[in-house]
Amino acid sequence: MDYLALGDSNEVNFKYQQIYDGIKEKVLKGKLKAREKLPSKRQLADELKVSVNTIANAYEQLLAEGYIYTIERKGYFIENITKFSDQEEGINKLPADLKEDDASEEDWLSLSHMSADISLFPFKEWMKCENKAVDKQKKELSELGHPQGPYLTRNTISRMIALTRGVVCEPEQIVIGAGTQLLIQQIMGIQNKKSIIAIEDPGYFRFYRLLNKMGFSVNPIQLDDKGIDIKEVESSHANFIFVTPSHQFPTGKIMPITRRIELLNWAAEADNRYIIEDDYDSEFKYETNNIPSLQSLDRNHSVIYTGTFSKTLLPGTRISYMVLPPDLLREYRKHHSDLMQFSNSLGLYTLHYFIENGGYSRHIKRMNHHYEMKRRVLIEQLRTKFNHQVCIQDIPAGLHLLVQFKSNKTYDEVEACAKEERLEIYTLRRFMLKNQNQANEWIELVIGFANIHESEIPEALDKLYRII
Amino acid sequence: MDYLALGDSNEVNFKYQQIYDGIKEKVLKGKLKAREKLPSKRQLADELKVSVNTIANAYEQLLAEGYIYTIERKGYFIENITKFSDQEEGINKLPADLKEDDASEEDWLSLSHMSADISLFPFKEWMKCENKAVDKQKKELSELGHPQGPYLTRNTISRMIALTRGVVCEPEQIVIGAGTQLLIQQIMGIQNKKSIIAIEDPGYFRFYRLLNKMGFSVNPIQLDDKGIDIKEVESSHANFIFVTPSHQFPTGKIMPITRRIELLNWAAEADNRYIIEDDYDSEFKYETNNIPSLQSLDRNHSVIYTGTFSKTLLPGTRISYMVLPPDLLREYRKHHSDLMQFSNSLGLYTLHYFIENGGYSRHIKRMNHHYEMKRRVLIEQLRTKFNHQVCIQDIPAGLHLLVQFKSNKTYDEVEACAKEERLEIYTLRRFMLKNQNQANEWIELVIGFANIHESEIPEALDKLYRII
Repeated sequence: MDYLALGDSNEVNFKYQQIYDGIKEKVLKGKLKAREKLPSKRQLADELKVSVNTIANAYEQLLAEGYIYTIERKGYFIENITKFSDQEEGINKLPADLKEDDASEEDWLSLSHMSADISLFPFKEWMKCENKAVDKQKKELSELGHPQGPYLTRNTISRMIALTRGVVCEPEQIVIGAGTQLLIQQIMGIQNKKSIIAIEDPGYFRFYRLLNKMGFSVNPIQLDDKGIDIKEVESSHANFIFVTPSHQFPTGKIMPITRRIELLNWAAEADNRYIIEDDYDSEFKYETNNIPSLQSLDRNHSVIYTGTFSKTLLPGTRISYMVLPPDLLREYRKHHSDLMQFSNSLGLYTLHYFIENGGYSRHIKRMNHHYEMKRRVLIEQLRTKFNHQVCIQDIPAGLHLLVQFKSNKTYDEVEACAKEERLEIYTLRRFMLKNQNQANEWIELVIGFANIHESEIPEALDKLYRII
Repeated sequence: MDYLALGDSNEVNFKYQQIYDGIKEKVLKGKLKAREKLPSKRQLADELKVSVNTIANAYEQLLAEGYIYTIERKGYFIENITKFSDQEEGINKLPADLKEDDASEEDWLSLSHMSADISLFPFKEWMKCENKAVDKQKKELSELGHPQGPYLTRNTISRMIALTRGVVCEPEQIVIGAGTQLLIQQIMGIQNKKSIIAIEDPGYFRFYRLLNKMGFSVNPIQLDDKGIDIKEVESSHANFIFVTPSHQFPTGKIMPITRRIELLNWAAEADNRYIIEDDYDSEFKYETNNIPSLQSLDRNHSVIYTGTFSKTLLPGTRISYMVLPPDLLREYRKHHSDLMQFSNSLGLYTLHYFIENGGYSRHIKRMNHHYEMKRRVLIEQLRTKFNHQVCIQDIPAGLHLLVQFKSNKTYDEVEACAKEERLEIYTLRRFMLKNQNQANEWIELVIGFANIHESEIPEALDKLYRII
């Protein structure tokens, strides 16, 4: 019997491969029968004119994979292998509908709110911190580490947000995760499925869909001039409220102190009421100072505070955190003892050093200045270009604006035109959770300015003008 | 009225802070009443002997936060603020049971299977690749990116696993995620909750608990000499099987070809039957070559293949991936259109260059050699030290061994002793999912050798000897 697979190279490795593949194929196709004896290593080596070693390696491999067995002093034999029930070769081509669109988006301009300007990111400084982490955290980096993230980094974050956001917490209360979405999923995953959730409308549709999918009853609540309508919250019988008080997403409004207190009072009125404060872009505040978090006013341990580094570092950095009130922390630890930390540990230690040596706050300061300039240019040019046809919610915070344009077009038409013009832009409709009706004669757009270069603004506005 | 908060610094910033804090406090405590007029900026500036600018800044900030309002040409007035319903200051001390144990684990020795030896990790080379990614992927790094991970990296992974594991797939079929746990959760989250799952016993208890928590009926299936018992699988009516064919976790057994074919035949017999192949440490194979994956033999698109970089890069790198059959990919995309990529994007591009320039395979080769040596030393010393009291499952693969010791101790006693001896070691009981009974006179331990230094092995075995 010819034990070789097809091919005729004389190289040792190829010979080995041919022998191994050859026997394997013959076993699978039933050409070598169960319990059939293979030639001895020496015999086959002579026959094929290769070294005994080459044969020995092939036999060892076939043995490890269970194609053959060996009986001491008797030699090697073919295993009794189950036959494939379906000998037809599967079609391995990917169906066309699953192919990814390779159309380059290179020449698109973007007014998306979901990006960041990384041109000023201090990569060198970051990598210095990375080097330091590699140097100092050898032991920690070789292990899986704490599920809530390294204590060192949690400690640094807790001290930083105490200063910048007035957040009152111990490092123990911080849970670091690879994104706010994931953290929300973790903390809501341990809540009673009968919980009722109130969420701002317009608001962050990803959380809306996530919570819906998790089986909760989620109530989009209209905003009044101060933010989420507390009376509507009450009549919804919600026990969780999701809010963005520092810079409402997407309208940009800052929740005034009186509504904040109303929310906290609502939470204090009954057990098991919680407010989730998503502080997604509070690092960027122009003209006035940062506004203290809602958590800083909380006296009843009823606020779950969430923050992220996606807006200040790279968007794909995937470092977010939440601050849990003690009762929820206890529950969290009970349920998630098996959970792993999903954020990159080297990145977390790097972040610690980056904050500690002041690099982070210097970067934030630089970016605040940079974004403030860009924002001002964008607003000026919008006003010049659209004149009385535009109404801008000029709230000096964050990385996006809500802008109204006079137009007779529908959202569908605007979205189609934007595609043609190759301009990435999102309409308010995307964030309207319940009622997607359009105001008469007005188009509302959520315009992000993080990732557009100042010099590209005129071109982007030309496109926008044609779209609207 | 004194508008200042306590403190007497004359520095501008402190003055600003005192004015701002002072008014805020008085509003919250009701000492400044709703609609009360504040002094004009000039008036207050004169009174407090500070610049008008300092007052203007404080008023602007209070305005932004909603403590005061302004009427053009009339001045600034106190807002009508809701009172806190509960004026008691919450106790902000963390309850003692939530405090984290600060006891240093510095002097412990570890025979854990959950770590890696990073002393040989080529950090310099990795960082070079990182620099390259920063340089070449500027645009991609400023955006959120594809939920399955960058196409570039998926393409590189698909080519690599085709070569090393025989995995047949297109980059479209790869979903990158921040850990296998998370990926399993994503793909199982879209399955019918009535699905029945068969899982190896002993096996990976984290998956077992995760799937149980997700609401599935999960059946631990005993292993026979070839691996998971196919007859037991059939009688459990399972439609999903979780297996670790390359190196069964934790027994270390390699599933022979005949059982692999039996599993594939089982999957082909009915619709909606899937095998999840967790290839968690297949990169490490000593003496013989890598064993092709189960997926490589699949002709019916019924294998979900999962792999990870946690064993080969840093354990906290958090880059894993799964390969989905086309039907499941279609479902996945439908359900997870809102999902984000949770793995660090810079890390993913760095990995692409690290694989592309050969750094990755060089590192694997180096580590194979290194671990093989360490493994051999460990086995030799175990045999010398314990002589006839030890039985080692010597399967030349992976980063851990299953070892049986003759002993009259119970698992509880062994675990307590290990704590006293400050040796991190895991008993087989941890991985026994259904029946946690102990074999008479035998203690079985899962001994990892990745993170212990060769020179520490004698000390670790001394500890082990005293424990057993």
